[in-house]
Amino acid sequence: MNIAILGGTGKEGAGLASRWALAGHSIIIGSRDAERAKAKAAELREQTKKLPIMGVIVIALPAQGLAATLPEVREACRGKVVISTVVPLTFGGPRLFTPPAAGSSAEEAQGFLPDAKVVAAFHHIAAHELSETEHAIECDLLLCGDASAKETVGELGRSMGLRPIDVGALGNAGPLEGITAVLATINRRYQLKNSGIKITGL
Amino acid sequence: MNIAILGGTGKEGAGLASRWALAGHSIIIGSRDAERAKAKAAELREQTKKLPIMGVIVIALPAQGLAATLPEVREACRGKVVISTVVPLTFGGPRLFTPPAAGSSAEEAQGFLPDAKVVAAFHHIAAHELSETEHAIECDLLLCGDASAKETVGELGRSMGLRPIDVGALGNAGPLEGITAVLATINRRYQLKNSGIKITGL
Repeated sequence: MNIAILGGTGKEGAGLASRWALAGHSIIIGSRDAERAKAKAAELREQTKKLPIMGVIVIALPAQGLAATLPEVREACRGKVVISTVVPLTFGGPRLFTPPAAGSSAEEAQGFLPDAKVVAAFHHIAAHELSETEHAIECDLLLCGDASAKETVGELGRSMGLRPIDVGALGNAGPLEGITAVLATINRRYQLKNSGIKITGL
Repeated sequence: MNIAILGGTGKEGAGLASRWALAGHSIIIGSRDAERAKAKAAELREQTKKLPIMGVIVIALPAQGLAATLPEVREACRGKVVISTVVPLTFGGPRLFTPPAAGSSAEEAQGFLPDAKVVAAFHHIAAHELSETEHAIECDLLLCGDASAKETVGELGRSMGLRPIDVGALGNAGPLEGITAVLATINRRYQLKNSGIKITGL
């Protein structure tokens, strides 16, 4: 699969890129910082020896960056599978989980990309776990959103050893994004870098 | 421990009562339906042979019922450990997870009970799992809220075999309650009654 990652120089985006590159996918990195993006992409091309061509698009931007970035890529995302890994967290305030008016960052992204097939996923896979590519990732892949795109996203998860779990329509993205606030709090309280979640009974 | 359960005739409240009765705790059941509450309490007294005296108070009411019920018990809850298991879900609408303006049902409850030590917990332990008392419950106990009350709530979890995990202050209750929307969706999609969650890496 050919995957473009917007925000691919951040920890989460770079981690996803590493895992997918290892699985044989082709990656292109988008960043507002052109030099960093180039350096990272060169590093990844070393691993993959494949020319990247956009197929699936991953939004791994900070939640505050969507309004500035997504309108520019609206045409490029038309009809495409777009994965939002964005989590609206605010550190240091009274509340860690601070979803936008749309209910979730994924729904906000869908608003900016009305013709894209948006799926919310990969929020719970710790960047630290992604980058330690010699280890298996002990976390389920919860995903919700466009029904016709979820199988593709599930395959991308399986390609890095994750079990995909369908959590319905994009209206459930808020609860999925909120779980990252739970994991971030657990990481801080228990001095961890890589807490994750598994669904039981399935 | 002596535990009062408001909404103890509902599935979740009755399930908690069963598990705690088996662990040797004393239970008193509160309900807006006095006859049902009496019948259920009599049944539980059979099991426990103990006189119930209020200690910890559990709110297992429907989210819509807080405003009508909690102001009446404000004095009884003063200084007490109050556990909110309430989840603001709306079935059949565009969005399953529908938190109140306060951010979460637990924070709404704290607003009605300003002198209580509110802890949000037990949202993810399926009623079905609770009532099948011969099985171990395959789910972690995520809890957040009043720092001085969390140890007590953790002990109540351990007494039914659960691993308590501290998820910080009550401002994280929204994300915890939202997880129930995730599990409810998984239950429906995969035709389960008892999906749960476990934190990994801990």
